[in-house]
Formats: sequence, structure tokens, C-alpha cells
Amino acid sequence: MKTVEEETLYRSLRLPHRPEGKLVLLVLDGVGDIATAATGYRTPLEAAVTPNLDELAQTSAMGRMTPVLPGITPGSGPGHLGLFGYDPAVFRADRGVIEALGLGMDLKLGDVAARANFCTVNAEGIVTDRRAGRIDSRLNRVLCEKLGAIGRIGETRIIVRRGRSHRFVVVFRGGGIAGPLPDSDPHRTGLPIRPIIAESREESAKRAAEVIAGFYRRAMPLLSEDLPANAFLLRGIGSLPRIPGFEERFQLGAAAIAVYPMYRGLAQLIGMRNLERAREIPQQFQQYLDEFQHFDYFFIHVKGTDMAGEDGDFDGKVAVIEAVDHALPILLQKRPLVLAITGDHSTPVALKSHSWHPQPVLLNSPVCGSDKLSRFTETCANRGSLGVFQSQYLIRLMMANAGLYGKFGP
Amino acid sequence: MKTVEEETLYRSLRLPHRPEGKLVLLVLDGVGDIATAATGYRTPLEAAVTPNLDELAQTSAMGRMTPVLPGITPGSGPGHLGLFGYDPAVFRADRGVIEALGLGMDLKLGDVAARANFCTVNAEGIVTDRRAGRIDSRLNRVLCEKLGAIGRIGETRIIVRRGRSHRFVVVFRGGGIAGPLPDSDPHRTGLPIRPIIAESREESAKRAAEVIAGFYRRAMPLLSEDLPANAFLLRGIGSLPRIPGFEERFQLGAAAIAVYPMYRGLAQLIGMRNLERAREIPQQFQQYLDEFQHFDYFFIHVKGTDMAGEDGDFDGKVAVIEAVDHALPILLQKRPLVLAITGDHSTPVALKSHSWHPQPVLLNSPVCGSDKLSRFTETCANRGSLGVFQSQYLIRLMMANAGLYGKFGP
Repeated sequence: MKTVEEETLYRSLRLPHRPEGKLVLLVLDGVGDIATAATGYRTPLEAAVTPNLDELAQTSAMGRMTPVLPGITPGSGPGHLGLFGYDPAVFRADRGVIEALGLGMDLKLGDVAARANFCTVNAEGIVTDRRAGRIDSRLNRVLCEKLGAIGRIGETRIIVRRGRSHRFVVVFRGGGIAGPLPDSDPHRTGLPIRPIIAESREESAKRAAEVIAGFYRRAMPLLSEDLPANAFLLRGIGSLPRIPGFEERFQLGAAAIAVYPMYRGLAQLIGMRNLERAREIPQQFQQYLDEFQHFDYFFIHVKGTDMAGEDGDFDGKVAVIEAVDHALPILLQKRPLVLAITGDHSTPVALKSHSWHPQPVLLNSPVCGSDKLSRFTETCANRGSLGVFQSQYLIRLMMANAGLYGKFGP
Repeated sequence: MKTVEEETLYRSLRLPHRPEGKLVLLVLDGVGDIATAATGYRTPLEAAVTPNLDELAQTSAMGRMTPVLPGITPGSGPGHLGLFGYDPAVFRADRGVIEALGLGMDLKLGDVAARANFCTVNAEGIVTDRRAGRIDSRLNRVLCEKLGAIGRIGETRIIVRRGRSHRFVVVFRGGGIAGPLPDSDPHRTGLPIRPIIAESREESAKRAAEVIAGFYRRAMPLLSEDLPANAFLLRGIGSLPRIPGFEERFQLGAAAIAVYPMYRGLAQLIGMRNLERAREIPQQFQQYLDEFQHFDYFFIHVKGTDMAGEDGDFDGKVAVIEAVDHALPILLQKRPLVLAITGDHSTPVALKSHSWHPQPVLLNSPVCGSDKLSRFTETCANRGSLGVFQSQYLIRLMMANAGLYGKFGP
């Protein structure tokens, strides 16, 4: 409720014009970190040599952002929805939907999507390997074609899209079905595949459960000879949620420059246009230059910081930060009117996982004001003028810095 | 409503296991202060010599907490309910209930409890001394026995429990009664005792008002010869509120190590186990060591900082802080997994009262991250990574630091 009322207020203040420059959100996934004894009380941002970020920092405003609520560790979905200006406690998307979108599938309202893994079951139907020995992508392709040939279950169309290694996605289309449904994945070996049973009493959820049970009955015999990939597990089964589009919500034409399927999926979920996949950070920044004229807002996603954090690889995280710094002059060839650099959450090296620690944020524009801080680091950000705030407000600050909000009240 | 939704979210993320170490909340009541000309622009935390707190600070995260909302000065009840993770604007308890619990009375739902003072009235029934010259506790005992002998009014049982000096508590049990009711205390001399009249139209409140009127009619003649304690005033008349228990809410077994009745009452209100009264701070810390195995969460309450603040006694407040610092190595003999040190509010020496100024908080755990601040003071806390947040979220941060929350969303 609060979110809706706030949205109404912000919307009433939105000036009708398009911004006179570009708004750029540069996400270094999981960049925030913590200073512990294990790292000599330094964070990767502190340890990295970042002359370009340092220069930017000196004329920027800084702060820290709570991704959801204090103490809550977000997945990448809520982390990014917050950055895009959606309260992640209100707007939610199941993993199946995000993965399907990320693989370029064009979901429709009424679809139910599931993330799937090929797995191994023994003669008693017990899961012995949840990833089927990480089969290669070629075998995956063959198996997905078999499953895709099932075509439909009753009135529901079945669409199977292969991913990498043992991963794929199933979309169930039509027939009055809806998610969410619990996973068939038991989440550890030694247990049988869970039957899909609707937790809600909605007829549409019961129908979806029946369709998926029917799909299992047809699919399992097809895989019986395909050891180690003789079965599959479904997770994150859900419907395309009704999330208002980014362009409608903020009146900004938006492009996403992201490499990994999940982030491309999140961007598509809210109607951002995904630009073609680029391989490296400099190419991502070059894409921004190339598409400069065509959008108001660019979301640029760098994954490496999060991966290094999850691996507990301090030097690796430093290296990704330095690579971003090194490439930054490319981005700045066409200076954004408003540039925000931050993470979607922290991924501390010491924890090897996402965390709840507020991520640092740097906001640069001609009117941001300088906080007179020398570097973009956690401890500098602690002293910034933005304080600690929920990340769902970042877009509002970016828009204010772009002169897109009129005065509230007389 | 917002609190309930947030509670649902946090609850859905609570992992089922118990923490692998202890969570300790050390409350220096009213410790926060302000730097003014009168104190040479130092606060008691700044003036105190605190080598142990200093050492802890250097590997801690810090911030400041708003007890309720900006500008709101809390009593001890809301101050502590916030620290325990209850939105103090939603969950409330009348003073009578808290005092009754603090005196060790075992309240039941349906009870109405009132805080009471013996007082002096003149021949015209005008209150001339609201504390009956602070009669001694022995006389108090005799008078309470007289009043207790009344036994019941209609279907309602009367239970009288003496406190110190002129103070006592009356519990009205049964007969379909409910609070809250306005005070009979006129809150200044020169006025008559106020008749108790229900403000709500609830039958249960009307019945409670009748019962209390009946109690006054029976009790006043019994005291007529007992000058200066020839009457009594009731305050904070209320029912035991329906507050979800701390253990149920957070799945943490909790003990309270508090000396004063009010804090023991607050702890009991939410189902914390009160350990036996200890006299001095070192003994309180020793109790934590002794009971280490039996609980997940310890609330340790130190009153002296608030009392010194209320007295405007700068040196006294410094001395209590130094006493805590001196005793701290006892507590740290069994290092808590998560240790939070803070106040329930500020009690600035310059104001001689509770205040709205956010209190500093220090949070220490293996995964808190160091904010690289040298001391636990207000100005250091201003530069910490926790920012300024509502104290109701402290328990969430403590639980996150203890690894008790799973990831939110895909």
C-alpha cells in the first residue's frame, strides 16, 4: 500500500519532458564488501587501484543502500528490482519466469514457467545426482528436443528451451493455469522427486499442478534410457507477474546491456530493451556509446564482482573492479547526465555469498553536489550525503538529478 | 499493517536452526547524549576512559537508532519494545501491566493492572501530597495487607502487591473487565482524586470502571486513620496486551538480566525468562557466563546511565560507562557470536530527561565488517555503515549477523 501511494506522489511530480541527457545505472554485481581480519581489514574497493573512479568520486555524492530491509539478503531478482525502482517486498518474480525471459523466451500473461535441471534417479526413483553429472550442452539439446516433442498436455502447450550444461526451462502456455507451485526438486539427494501439488486452493493452480503431473508422466519414459540424465527437477515454478513496465512507470526509454540470462530476463520483465550480448566490459561500454541516441536510461550489468565474491576470491574481485575502472573512460566519452555506480547487494569475499550489508553507491551529475570524499569505497560512502537508504529510491534520486521532477506543493 | 507484512517476510526467511552462538543485547539505559557548551562539547561516552569498548569498536559496525520516529521521545517501555523487535507505535503496554509483571506477578489475559501510589488528601478530599511523604516500605506493607483483605468486588478478585516506599500495584482479575482506563491520579496537588470513568463504550471497560469505583468505596474508609497515607492514586490502568512472545516471534530462547522491576516486567511481557536479580554490573555479566548454555539471546540491562542523565550528573554518567567498560572482559570471557551495545533512547545530561536524539549502537560479530572507527561514541557512530535506522530493526541485523536468515528471492 505504502509503495502504491508513494508511486502516485512521484508520478504526480514527473515533468512531461524527456531528460536532456542520459541516466546510466552501472551495476557491479555484489560489489559491496566488509573489512575483516581475513582481508587485512580492507575491502576490494579499497584495495583496487582505481584512478578513474577516484576522480569521479571527488565530484560525486555517496551513500549506502539497503536492498530490501535491514538484515535481509536478497537474491539477484529482488536486488535488481529495487535498483529499478520497484519495492522488492511487493513486486516479486519467480526464478522460472526470470530464467525463461533471460533465455529470450517471449512470455505471455497466463504462462507458467519453470527452471529445470536434468538429474539422475536410481531404480527406486531416488535422486542420486541433482545435476546429472553436469551433462554437456549437446546432450542437453537432444533431450530437450525429446521433451519439446510432447507438444501439449490437454489444452496447455509445452515449450522447452535448453540452457547450459544440465539446465533448461519449461514454459506451460494456456489452459487457464497459474503459479506459483512448489518445487519438484527435493533440494538434496537421497529423496524422491516431489509430486507437484498446488498449495493454494485456486482452480488455476490445481490445473497447473495437473498439467505438470501429466508432463512428468509423458516425459519420464522418454528419458528412461538416458542415464545419467534419466529424470528432471523443476524449481521456481511461477506465472509472469503483473509488474508495471519501467517505461510506463518512469517515462524513460530504457536499454539493458547485460550478458547473463538472469539479468537480461529481469530487464525484459519490466520491458527494458535488451541490447545484443557483449563479451567484455569495454564492449558493454561501447554499446552504450553506440546506442546513446536511442534511449534515456541504460542499465549496464557487470557480473564478475559477484562471481569473485561468491568464490571468496579477493584478488579476483579487485581485478574486476580495476577492469571496470580501466574501461570507464570509454563510457565517459559521452558523459551521462546522471551516472549511478553501485551493486544490487553486497557479496563479501569473507562470506562467499550474497549478504545484507548495505552496498555503497556513487551518484554523479552536474547537480549532485560533491561530498568531498576521495574514493568510491564503503567507508567513504558511510560519510556521504545520501546516508543509508532503500535502493528502491535510487531511481528517484537519479531522476531528480536529471531535472525530471517538479516541486511538490506550493 | 506495514509491520505485519514485514514480519511475514522476515518470518518466511528465518532458517529453522538455532544460532551457533549467543546473541547479546547490552543496554546502557539512556546512554546517548549530546555535546553542548555546558559539557565542553563532550558527551559522557567521549569523556569516559573505555579501553575495552575502544578495542571492540575497532572491529565493529556502528550507527544510530531512532527509537520510534524522528522527534519522538520514548518512555522505557517503547524504547525497549523497539530494541526487542516490536514496532513501539503498534505494540503498546500500559505502565500498570509492566509494573505488575516487574514485581513478579503472574498476569493473565483478562486481568486489569494499575500502578498505585499512597497519597495524602485533606478533609475536602483534595490531594495535598501525591506520594504521602514517601512513607517507608514497612508501613506500605501494612497498608497493602489491609487493601488486599478486601479480596473481591463482585466477581472480580483484587490482588495488591506492595512496591517500594509509597508505591504498590493492584491487579483486578476476572469478571469480564478490560482496560485501558484513565488515571485517578490528577497529576498535581490541589485537585481531587479523579473518578474512574471508562472512555470507551466497551461493556468490559465500563465494568472495570465500576469495579475500581467499588474498590475505592471499600478501600478509602480502611485508610482514613493512616495519615499521611490516607488515600491512593491509580495510574497506567490497563489490560495485559496481546503481544506475540519473543521466542515464538524470533525462535530464540531469551533471558533477561535486569535489576529494576520495569525492565524485568517488559522482559516478562514478551516471555523472556528473568534471571535472578544481581546487584552490580560484574555480577550481571557473570550471570550471562553462568547461564550461557541455556539461552540463545541475552538482554542485559544497566540502569545507571539513565539515572545519571536524569539527574544531570555528567560525571556520574561517565562513571557508569567506565564501570561497564571495566567489567566488559567478564562478558567477553565467553564471546557472544553477536553483541549489540546501545541504549533504549538518549538521556542527555543537559536535558535531565529522556530525549528523541538517536542513540549510538555498536554491533560486533565475525561478519559485521569493521567500520574502522576508533571509539564507541556518538560522532564515531555517525560515520558507521549502519546509518540511522529504527531500533526495531536491530534484532533483524543481529539475527542476520548470526546467520539466521536465508536469501530472499531468486
